[in-house]
Amino acid sequence: MNPYCVAIDWGTSSFRIWLMSGDGSALAERRSDEGMTHAATTGFSKVMEAHLQALQAPASLPVVICGMAGSRQGWTEARYLTVPAKLCDIVEKAVRVEGAQRDVRILPGLAQRDPERFDVMRGEETQLLGEFAGDQSSGLACMPGTHSKWVRIAAGRVTEFSTYMTGELFGLIARQSILRHAVGNIDTCDPGSAAFLGAVKEARDNPAGVSRLLFSIRAGQLLNGQDAASSYERLSGLLIGWEIAAARAEFGTGDKIHLVASGKLFRLYDAAFRSLGLKVPAIDADDAVLKGLMAGAQQFWPIPDHHTDYGHINA
Amino acid sequence: MNPYCVAIDWGTSSFRIWLMSGDGSALAERRSDEGMTHAATTGFSKVMEAHLQALQAPASLPVVICGMAGSRQGWTEARYLTVPAKLCDIVEKAVRVEGAQRDVRILPGLAQRDPERFDVMRGEETQLLGEFAGDQSSGLACMPGTHSKWVRIAAGRVTEFSTYMTGELFGLIARQSILRHAVGNIDTCDPGSAAFLGAVKEARDNPAGVSRLLFSIRAGQLLNGQDAASSYERLSGLLIGWEIAAARAEFGTGDKIHLVASGKLFRLYDAAFRSLGLKVPAIDADDAVLKGLMAGAQQFWPIPDHHTDYGHINA
Repeated sequence: MNPYCVAIDWGTSSFRIWLMSGDGSALAERRSDEGMTHAATTGFSKVMEAHLQALQAPASLPVVICGMAGSRQGWTEARYLTVPAKLCDIVEKAVRVEGAQRDVRILPGLAQRDPERFDVMRGEETQLLGEFAGDQSSGLACMPGTHSKWVRIAAGRVTEFSTYMTGELFGLIARQSILRHAVGNIDTCDPGSAAFLGAVKEARDNPAGVSRLLFSIRAGQLLNGQDAASSYERLSGLLIGWEIAAARAEFGTGDKIHLVASGKLFRLYDAAFRSLGLKVPAIDADDAVLKGLMAGAQQFWPIPDHHTDYGHINA
Repeated sequence: MNPYCVAIDWGTSSFRIWLMSGDGSALAERRSDEGMTHAATTGFSKVMEAHLQALQAPASLPVVICGMAGSRQGWTEARYLTVPAKLCDIVEKAVRVEGAQRDVRILPGLAQRDPERFDVMRGEETQLLGEFAGDQSSGLACMPGTHSKWVRIAAGRVTEFSTYMTGELFGLIARQSILRHAVGNIDTCDPGSAAFLGAVKEARDNPAGVSRLLFSIRAGQLLNGQDAASSYERLSGLLIGWEIAAARAEFGTGDKIHLVASGKLFRLYDAAFRSLGLKVPAIDADDAVLKGLMAGAQQFWPIPDHHTDYGHINA
């Protein structure tokens, strides 16, 4: 099948590229750690073209990108849309990269400019575009990650959101704080473990006390010989429970929560929500970002009915 | 004046040594970064004797030590006393270093063994010994640091305590998280600044939301051009406000708080407490540790009335 376009999710430290068919299915995929930080030195075009060559993409195949490539330090700035914002407006405000060898469009992120609640996202809005752009779409999206986002959506608009530093704090604390002695070189967390689920509940019930609960992991190792695996699980549970408690306090408990995540993070948050008695339907984050990028592509490069070779687009 | 003994505060990463007179005043002082981590490799005796030589200390002068030199990874383990514990028992349970060239005693730390609240301290108990050992001493001590301690004292006993990772989290977040872009290379915080005091209040009022408030520092830089100095002040204020909120929730608001701190940390916490309307008398942490070490010394090596040359002790 001929490819229709290329989709890229370009994060701070990660790069993912897909060769897409017109029906929204991925024909091929590549991942690397050539995120924005890397590409800002190497050159965005160079990084992208090397992958496109490896994928044997035609020279005229157009590209749609979301994420940090659109930041001020990125390839071409795609300025934030201010919330409240309709998700489909992300496509309207996409920026075309000038001087590129092919048609390259970058989707903008979202900014919350209330001085009491400054916040930004780049990348997550495209996942939301894929799933919640419809006028009937409402609810609260929990999007775990280095910087977890909780996003309120009402009738296809993002009305407000908050970022929690859960993933980044986890990495720093596990690898560089005094707790590194307690967690050793463990790097997997059993989502069903008593240590993980107990810590989720502890932090949910006492989010203010998380700084003390964190230190208790080190003390538990010294005084009680707590093993590395359960120390790691406890650390993970405390930070996830803290995030859930904070978001519940901030966004209230009236909205349906949708968990937008994949892989390990999906399994951890899903287990955490279940253990707290919350029913949270899941949306695969990888699927969502592809759907969002394709929603953009189909507006930039409309596919006439019954066309399948896309030669008209890639000419 | 002849020296009476040597006092050492041996932390994880810091080393302080004083040549003491029998009346409790310091005749000379040296500081270095030869903390436990360093000394565990170089050798504790070697590090100490080099400083004693520089101080021209007599070969038989005895030494009293507090801090991490008494940990399992330290020089000689001085096992934790379990709370509740009388502060003066720290002296009773001091451990003598075997095979040392002179009389060297290490004061033990304290452990809280309640499985719901595992916690440990090494060093702070000696500051408390200097100030709160009397039967009439009661209240709550706030001891800021890498791992801040809040300690409840009743009639000369430590009844309970908690450790907050404030200082360590501050360093990791300021230097290694995404917030490093917002705080740049700033390393001083004005305790009177609106950014610092505003953040103290914000975190005190919303301790659960601190993870989100932290990220808002980065967003404030991106969206509002927030400068590095106020970003740094805001980060400091959020973490200190969070600690105060957590400790107030945990220990209640009935006890008088004593701030045991020196230098920069004293100025920041003092300003924070004042801005929250809390009257918190101050105790200099450097003075307190010397008083505690001297309280130990005077029991190990009693000074007969009217003696001033201590030859009887150092013989």
